[in-house]
Amino acid sequence: MSHAPTDALRRRHHLVRVAAAGERLDAVVVTALPNILYLTNFGGSSAVVVLAADRLYFITDFRYVTAANEMRDGPCACPGFELVRVDSSYDATLASLLGSLSAARIGFEAAHLTVSRHRWLTATLQDGGAAPPELVATEGLVERFRVRKDRYELETLREAARRLSAVASGLFEEIRRGRKELDIALAIDWRIRQAGFERPAFDTIVASGPNAALPHARPGERTLTEGDLVVLDFGGVYDSYCVDLTRTVSIGAPSPRVRDVHRAVLDAHDQAIAAVAPGRSRFAIDQAARDTLTGYGLGDAFGHGTGHGLGIEVHEDPRVTRRRPGVDPESGDNDAVAAGMVFTIEPGAYLPGWGGVRIEDDVVVTESGVEVITAVTTDLLEF
Amino acid sequence: MSHAPTDALRRRHHLVRVAAAGERLDAVVVTALPNILYLTNFGGSSAVVVLAADRLYFITDFRYVTAANEMRDGPCACPGFELVRVDSSYDATLASLLGSLSAARIGFEAAHLTVSRHRWLTATLQDGGAAPPELVATEGLVERFRVRKDRYELETLREAARRLSAVASGLFEEIRRGRKELDIALAIDWRIRQAGFERPAFDTIVASGPNAALPHARPGERTLTEGDLVVLDFGGVYDSYCVDLTRTVSIGAPSPRVRDVHRAVLDAHDQAIAAVAPGRSRFAIDQAARDTLTGYGLGDAFGHGTGHGLGIEVHEDPRVTRRRPGVDPESGDNDAVAAGMVFTIEPGAYLPGWGGVRIEDDVVVTESGVEVITAVTTDLLEF
Repeated sequence: MSHAPTDALRRRHHLVRVAAAGERLDAVVVTALPNILYLTNFGGSSAVVVLAADRLYFITDFRYVTAANEMRDGPCACPGFELVRVDSSYDATLASLLGSLSAARIGFEAAHLTVSRHRWLTATLQDGGAAPPELVATEGLVERFRVRKDRYELETLREAARRLSAVASGLFEEIRRGRKELDIALAIDWRIRQAGFERPAFDTIVASGPNAALPHARPGERTLTEGDLVVLDFGGVYDSYCVDLTRTVSIGAPSPRVRDVHRAVLDAHDQAIAAVAPGRSRFAIDQAARDTLTGYGLGDAFGHGTGHGLGIEVHEDPRVTRRRPGVDPESGDNDAVAAGMVFTIEPGAYLPGWGGVRIEDDVVVTESGVEVITAVTTDLLEF
Repeated sequence: MSHAPTDALRRRHHLVRVAAAGERLDAVVVTALPNILYLTNFGGSSAVVVLAADRLYFITDFRYVTAANEMRDGPCACPGFELVRVDSSYDATLASLLGSLSAARIGFEAAHLTVSRHRWLTATLQDGGAAPPELVATEGLVERFRVRKDRYELETLREAARRLSAVASGLFEEIRRGRKELDIALAIDWRIRQAGFERPAFDTIVASGPNAALPHARPGERTLTEGDLVVLDFGGVYDSYCVDLTRTVSIGAPSPRVRDVHRAVLDAHDQAIAAVAPGRSRFAIDQAARDTLTGYGLGDAFGHGTGHGLGIEVHEDPRVTRRRPGVDPESGDNDAVAAGMVFTIEPGAYLPGWGGVRIEDDVVVTESGVEVITAVTTDLLEF
C-alpha cells in the first residue's frame, strides 16, 4: 500500500493514457505489480490493471476484495476505479474483460508478461469473437514516468531516508568485536522494523574481514575481529518506497592501508555526488566515481556500478553505470538524469582476501543540482 | 544456497535431460531462479543456466563469480559445471553461448521468459549465423520434478518444520492483551531468524479481532483485546526451503461461538489430513475440508484453497484447491498426489466483522499415507 493522493494518481493515469494514445492503443494491460501500485496505491501480491480511456479496471481475487473496495473512497481513492473480481483464473477474467471492451489495439507490458501468458491470451481472444482485439507489445509505458518522482513520492522517500539514517546512527552501538555477522544483521533488521519500515528492502549485508571483499556477501557465523573492515549495507521499505544505505567501519584502529582505501572510496563517493545535476549523463556520474578510484590505483577493485534508482523497487532506473558496449546506444539523448530522479551513489573497492569498503547514500536530482537525502557520518568509525 | 549433494543434482539433471530429449531438445535454457537453485544449489539473485547434453553452463555476473567458483568442488559440487561470466548483459552472453552450441532446438521456460526477452533472443540468434537454433517453448520442464521432493529435500523440510514448530511453541509467550499486532509480528520474525532460518518465508500475519476475518491481513497498530481471536501465520526459509504454519489463539476465555468455529476448522483440518494418501486427488483433499466446514454451516466462510505445495517456493504445486471449471481439466489423471509431495493443510473460516480461525500444518505424502511434519498443539489456547 502507498498513500498517493487522488490527484497524483489522476496525473499518473493521464500520463500513461497520453503515452498509450501515442502508440494508438485503446487500452493498456498492466501486469507488473510495481506499476500497478504506482497507478492505484495497491500493495497486495495479486492484481491486473486494465487502463482504458475513462476507467481503470482492477482485477483481483477474493483475498483482496476488501482492500480493493477501500480504494474507491477517501483522499487516496483511485480515479475511475472499477473492480473486476476473479472468478476462475486471472487470465480467464482478463480475457473476458478485454473481449468486452470494444478495443481494437490493447497494449501489454512485454517486459513483464511471460511468453506462456501472452500465447494463452492471444489464442483465447482469437477464439472469443469475430473482431478480437490485437495485443500490442509496449516497453516501459509506466516505468518511463516512475523514473521521475512526483511530489508525494519525494516526500515519502525523504521521510524514508530520514528514518533509515536514524537506524544507521543507532546501529553503531551493535558493533563490537566478538559478535557474529548474523547477529548484527538480525539486530539491523529489527531496528529497521522498529523504525516504521514495512520490511528490509533486501537481505541485509554485514560483511567482515575478508568477507567485505564480496559485494553481495551473506552474513554468517564469522565474528568481528580486531583489524576487520565491516561493510554494513541495508535498506527499508517505507510506505512501499525503498531506501538503501551502506557504511564501512573498522574494528580497532585502522591500518594506514585501510585509511587509504576508505579515503579513496569516500572521495569517489563525493566526486560522483558532485557530478549529479539535471542534464548530466548517468554514465558521466559513474565515470566520476570510477576515475577517482583509478587515480588511487583502485580502478580494478571497483567491479559494480555506481548506483541504481530507488522507488517502488529497490533497483530501478536510472542505472548509474558504465556504458555497456553493444548494449547501451552511443547516443546520449536518453542518458541524462533529470529533476525528480532518486538513486544511490555507492562506489566501493574490493580486494580479494583483504577486505573492502563501500559507502552509499541516496540522492535526489533537483532543479539546480543534487540533494543528499540520507544523513550519516562518512568518517571511518572505529569500534 | 541449498546443500543438495552432487548425486542428487546429477539425478535432477538426468531427469530434465530425459524430459528435454522427449521434446527433441538439444539444450534447455533455465531462467527461473527456483529452478536454477534446484539444478545447482545456487541461491543468488542473478544467473541463467543452459543445460546441454554433457554440460551445465552457468551464466552469472562478477558479483557471484566467487560463489560460482565454489560450486565446482566439494560434496555439493554441481556436475558438468561450466562458468560463463557475463560481459555486457545476461542476454547478450546467453545469445552468444547459444549460438556456439551447434544445437538445432533449444527449449526455454515459456512460463518465466518475458515476451521482450524472447523477442530479443530470437532476433539476435537469427542475426548471428547461417543456421540459428530454434527456440522452443516448454512448460514445467523442471517444475514437474520439483513437485516430488527427493531424500535431501525431505530431510531439509523436516528439519525446517521441526524448527518452525519450536518457534510456534515459543512465541506463545509473546501473546498478551494490550500488545500491538505489529510488535508481535516483529517478535515472530526475530524468533524465526534466531531459529536458524534465512528469513521469514512471507510477511508474517498477526490478525486480531475483526482483522482475523481477513485471510491476508497485515499486522498493524491494533492491540490484542479481551475476547479477540488472533490468527498467527508465519513461515521460514531454511537452507532455501520454505515451511509455513498457522495457529489461532483466544485472548481471554473463548465464547461458545468461538469454540464452535474453532472446532469446525480443526475438524476440517483433521479430515483433510486424513484424506491425504498417494493416488488421492488434490481436489478430493480440498473437498474433505470443504464438506466438513459445510456440515458446520461454515462452507461460505471458507473462501480460499485448503493448501499449497512447499519447497524452494512458498507457494508451488500441488495446489490443494477446488477444481476450477473451465480451467482445470475434468480428467483427473494429473490431479493425484504422490509420495514425496509436501504441502500445507490450512482450512479457515472467516466471518466479516466478527473474526476468523485458520489452522495450518505441513504434510508429506508418504508411500503409505501422510506424515505431518509440523508439531504444535491444535488446542484452542487462551491467553
